[in-house]
Formats: sequence, C-alpha cells, structure tokens
Amino acid sequence: MERIPILQMGDILLVTIQVDMHDQLALTLQDDLTERIRATSARGVLIEISALDIVDSFIGRMIDTISALARIMDARTVVVGMQPAVAITLVELGLNLAGVRTALNVDRGMKLLQQIGDTDA
Amino acid sequence: MERIPILQMGDILLVTIQVDMHDQLALTLQDDLTERIRATSARGVLIEISALDIVDSFIGRMIDTISALARIMDARTVVVGMQPAVAITLVELGLNLAGVRTALNVDRGMKLLQQIGDTDA
Repeated sequence: MERIPILQMGDILLVTIQVDMHDQLALTLQDDLTERIRATSARGVLIEISALDIVDSFIGRMIDTISALARIMDARTVVVGMQPAVAITLVELGLNLAGVRTALNVDRGMKLLQQIGDTDA
Repeated sequence: MERIPILQMGDILLVTIQVDMHDQLALTLQDDLTERIRATSARGVLIEISALDIVDSFIGRMIDTISALARIMDARTVVVGMQPAVAITLVELGLNLAGVRTALNVDRGMKLLQQIGDTDA
C-alpha cells in the first residue's frame, strides 16, 4: 500500500495522512495529487492530519510543497484535524505553516474552501 | 498511529482504511466508530478501501461487523472505492458482503446514504 488515497468529494480532494511519510511516499503523493487536480478540475485540497501525533519539519515542508503545487494549479489547500500537541510543536519549531490555511475539522475545512472559492470568483 | 481516523462530514462519518488491519486495530476502530456515531448522531458511515490491494476474510468480517454495529445504532454503512481486483477476489472467496451496500466512490456513496436516509424517513 505504497500510495496515499486521494478521495474526491465534489470539487474538493481529500487526503488523509495516516502513515509515516517518507521521501518516496511524499513524491508519489505530489505526483498523484497534481494529476488528480488536473483530471478532476478540483478547486480545493483538504489535508487531514488528525492521525499524526508528531509533525516534523519533513511533513511541514511536504504540506508547504503540496500547497504551492495546488496553488499554481488553481486549487486552494486547507490543513484540517491538527492535534493540539502538534500545533504546539509546530509553533515551537518555528514552523508556522505560513501561507497554508488551517481549519479545525473536515466540515469547517470544506466551508473555508467554499468561501475562498466564492471570494476568488 | 494505532488508530484509524474517523472524519465527520455533516451527518456522515468517513473511515479510510490505508493500513494493514489486525485484531486490535479493528477492535479499536469498532469502539471509536460506535462512540462517534453516538457523539455525532451520524446517520451514515462510509468505509473507503481504495488503498487496499487485497481484502481477505478478516477485512470482510470486519466490514460486516462494522455494518451490523452501525445498523443497530441507526446508521447505514456504504463501502466505497473498491478496486476491481478486490471485487474479483471477494466474489471468488464467496465473500459477497451481503447486507453491505457499496458505491464506486465517495461522492456516490454520500448520495446513496442520502437516498437511504430519505427512504427511511
């Protein structure tokens, strides 16, 4: 199972990170995601990380990269489901995920993507 | 990361199976899911299995159990994202997932849950 599934919900793609990320898996995810954005004309990407107890700089960078990739493909990225401990660690590490929107959960993330889309239009 | 995240989308709970299941993980998922159905008053459960290349009788039974648990808690279960090879294996094994509804993808699964809910009402 060496790829992370990307689920389509309307014009939003949902990626749930459940496993430890490593270089190859992150690269595969980036390839798959950009391909799916193109194929589905998705306007938003939700990255759900509630399963992660730890977010290190590797994951932080991966989220940044995905967000940048999505942006130049005309899709917005929202990170959802962050555990409180992860938020604390990120801020302590100085990884503020600048430029990445966050929302507490999937429902709010979807609403946020909808709002961003409306503003863009 | 020894639990499978359960994502809430409106009154539907989404479970994406990405990792190899074993006894304890399946039990934890059943506990978590019933608890979440109660806490959120969810009417539907989507089990997304596109990441699974293989579904054996253990997974088949787990899906059956989850579906039965959800049903007696007044929620309907739909399995989505099944790979063609998995469908072939299931039928060859005689595991027809009787009593479990399936849909091709998350979007269709959500529509199906909506329809079931409407019919129940």
